[in-house]
Order: sequence, then structure tokens, then C-alpha cells
Amino acid sequence: MPQFQLDQGLANDCIRLGQFAGAELLLMNNALYPWLILVPHCAHTELYQLEAREQQILLSAINQLSAFIKQHFASEKLNIASIGNIVSQLHIHIVGRQQSDAAWPNTVWSSPQRELYAAAAVRNICAALAQYLGDSFISDHSKH
Amino acid sequence: MPQFQLDQGLANDCIRLGQFAGAELLLMNNALYPWLILVPHCAHTELYQLEAREQQILLSAINQLSAFIKQHFASEKLNIASIGNIVSQLHIHIVGRQQSDAAWPNTVWSSPQRELYAAAAVRNICAALAQYLGDSFISDHSKH
Repeated sequence: MPQFQLDQGLANDCIRLGQFAGAELLLMNNALYPWLILVPHCAHTELYQLEAREQQILLSAINQLSAFIKQHFASEKLNIASIGNIVSQLHIHIVGRQQSDAAWPNTVWSSPQRELYAAAAVRNICAALAQYLGDSFISDHSKH
Repeated sequence: MPQFQLDQGLANDCIRLGQFAGAELLLMNNALYPWLILVPHCAHTELYQLEAREQQILLSAINQLSAFIKQHFASEKLNIASIGNIVSQLHIHIVGRQQSDAAWPNTVWSSPQRELYAAAAVRNICAALAQYLGDSFISDHSKH
């Protein structure tokens, strides 16, 4: 495919953590929830349009990030979604939820509440991800 | 696993269309959007907890239902999600969206708007699904 370019809306709302499983790995800049976003390097806008092999890689990445969020944040529930009504570039939300969080039991997409991350918190999440995912995660933050 | 029992909340909100790919196939009783729900016959509450084989079957079913909704309803966007904040029984939403629909660009989960289906519309959707999916879909409505 032509060179991948991250959608400007995602770039504005999120912190880029690095690359994982042929996708950009983003952290929504909202410390109210552990909220990862995978943006596969493809030109499709719907999951079912991916080739079987691309789907398998993405599914495996979703599984690993789900397990990471459950373990690292002790999340009580995971919300996994491909929506794309506002940003059409295919992206998958993987969100850890707690019954005590700001939006529960509603979805995070309908909640206007937001709390920006401190830089140290992002570094900690990135370091934990690097430890959990191993070499398959190419962190943007490890060099800092 | 022990005998599968559909969550009462899902049973109340949805119309059971039949069985497909080891899951209940439901239609959200809201004619404002084509909104299918797959409920795998399992005791897990999170996608990543499924065995690899169960995931593959579910992924294939999501792909087929996605393509069906895109084709049959000419949906401009698909929203695919596993949320489960209110109903913990694992269930996957596959929703066709239009820029002209009642909730756009917001998600359907945050919209209170609802319009119940007429019986004939449900029969039509079920017949179209049966034609699209073939024998792998065991319709509850074909006998009527």
C-alpha cells in the first residue's frame, strides 16, 4: 500500500505509543480509562474487508492488548470496538472499564469527560506494554 | 458447557432470529438501524478468553454478517463491538449505519431513540439472511 499516514483526528486525540503487529498503537489522551487504539496499516475502513491474514494478525494483537489491559489495570470489563463514524480510517478501540469509572455503565464514546495524561503516566504505560509485549512492540518512548 | 441460556435483558430487547455459527443470532428490536447481535454459546464474558477455534468461528460469522448488512441495507458504515457493561453475557453488536440515521455520528448505544419492528419487516430480514447465509443459518422464522 502507499505510505501509511495516521488520520489527523486520531493524531490530535491520541498519544502515539509505537508500532505493534503491523499497526500504529495509540493511547487515547484521556487518563479516565485505559484506552488503546490499534490502527492497522491498511487502506480499508471495515474489519471484514481485511484479508484473512491481516485479520489474524489484528485479532492476535487485540487478544494480547486485551489481556494486557485486564492484567495491568485490573479492568473489570473490556470494551472492544470498530466504529469509525467520525474517523473513517480503520481503528480498533480496546478499553478497560471499571464500575467506578467516569462513564460506567455507558460507553466511553458518549462521555465528554476527559483528563489529559501526565507524561510520566504515559511513560509508565509504555514501559509496561514493552515488557508485556516483548520485541514485537516497537516503542516510540523507549528512547526517551 | 452447561445448557446455554440467553440473558434475560437481551431476550427482552431483541428478536431471536435463529442460530448461526454456534451462536444465537438476534435482531435488536429497533427498526432505526440494522442491528444484529451474535451471542456465542459459551460462558466467557470477554472475546480474548475464547479458545482460538471459537474465535475463528466467531470472526467468520462477524465477517459474513458484516458483508450481509453492507449489501442488504447498503449501510455506509459498520459498527462492530463487544461492550457488555450492562449485559455481561458475551455478545457482539454488528450495526449498519447511515449518515442519515437517527444517531449519526454518535453510537447507537448512546441513543435513546427506538422504533419497534413490524412482524413483516422481521420476516423479510430473516428471509434475506437465510438466503445469504445458506444452511449454516437455522432460522426460527422459516417455519412460520
